[in-house]
Amino acid sequence: MRVQTTRIKPQSGIALEIREGETLKVICPEGKQVSDLVAFNASDLREVLSNGKTFDYEESLKLTTGNNLFSNRSRIMLEITGDSCGIHDFLLAPCCPVTMKHFYDIGGQPPNCLDNLYEALKDRGVERWQIPTAFNIFMNVQLDANQHISVEPPTARPGDSITFLAHMDLLLGITACSAGASNDYAYGPIDVVHIRGREAV
Amino acid sequence: MRVQTTRIKPQSGIALEIREGETLKVICPEGKQVSDLVAFNASDLREVLSNGKTFDYEESLKLTTGNNLFSNRSRIMLEITGDSCGIHDFLLAPCCPVTMKHFYDIGGQPPNCLDNLYEALKDRGVERWQIPTAFNIFMNVQLDANQHISVEPPTARPGDSITFLAHMDLLLGITACSAGASNDYAYGPIDVVHIRGREAV
Repeated sequence: MRVQTTRIKPQSGIALEIREGETLKVICPEGKQVSDLVAFNASDLREVLSNGKTFDYEESLKLTTGNNLFSNRSRIMLEITGDSCGIHDFLLAPCCPVTMKHFYDIGGQPPNCLDNLYEALKDRGVERWQIPTAFNIFMNVQLDANQHISVEPPTARPGDSITFLAHMDLLLGITACSAGASNDYAYGPIDVVHIRGREAV
Repeated sequence: MRVQTTRIKPQSGIALEIREGETLKVICPEGKQVSDLVAFNASDLREVLSNGKTFDYEESLKLTTGNNLFSNRSRIMLEITGDSCGIHDFLLAPCCPVTMKHFYDIGGQPPNCLDNLYEALKDRGVERWQIPTAFNIFMNVQLDANQHISVEPPTARPGDSITFLAHMDLLLGITACSAGASNDYAYGPIDVVHIRGREAV
């Protein structure tokens, strides 16, 4: 078993290749930090993470240990095998320059997840428009009785983690999210542990 | 003003081009029938309807008169200008052969929205994998207190409709949905009224 730990600096992103049967653990080292995760079939970038297909098969917005994340081709990409936090989001798209302007009145090209994902993935052939709605690890999105959406401070404590088993060879994009409200304006790092081998974390 | 009405037969789909400023009215002539709607920028198919971006900017799962449907590039594609039903869904992906097998144990290639959208759109250059999570007109998706998803019979009565104003030139795919639970096992037609001109319906 080989274990590789990568620290994602605040407001940045990385690409990571992971093979079927390998494990990925995403850790919130300082608490209150969201991590956007997108996934592509490593051998065919047209197969991509899909919130719609995941909601279809899991029949729940709440996704935690035992749930699977599906592709647009109805295949399991990632299985959640451990989760000490329990609150994640699969509704909202990665923050981008337009959301930064809309919600925070920050102009120009501030750090944002869409650009960070694209910069990390573009050398592997991913085009910007292909980046899907991410699985937003540790993001605390609440719905009221009228299905109004609010973004609340993450409940993740320092050291909280979520663990995934890869069901196919995947190209992943992973960020430490840049949006203020999503991270309680803390902007911490994210640690990613890639375990080659079939042992659980 | 030119008005063109098209009937979508049960369990089928059509493509439709609509220009900026034109109006589209989708009618449920017999009640209880869902219609999956997808949209592409007519001059650049890489710009496509996005549930994640729509949830970002509308801050609600409940989308009705006054709400906009956004693209993956954070631009308004369609504005909802009228809605006599009020219950639609933007969570679930179009039904496909895998969902037909999973939920109904129907094998082979039964009628399904993903294939119907693809067959309608492929001559315009859309590839199957590019078809996004649809805006599911008249689809009655409910969430319980645990965010469990259930598909309930549509509340749409005969003649209920939803009206959209196009904010850009669009290539649309529109179906009369083929999934049993989504349509209370009724499988009715859908009428589409395309109004060229800026008058309201």
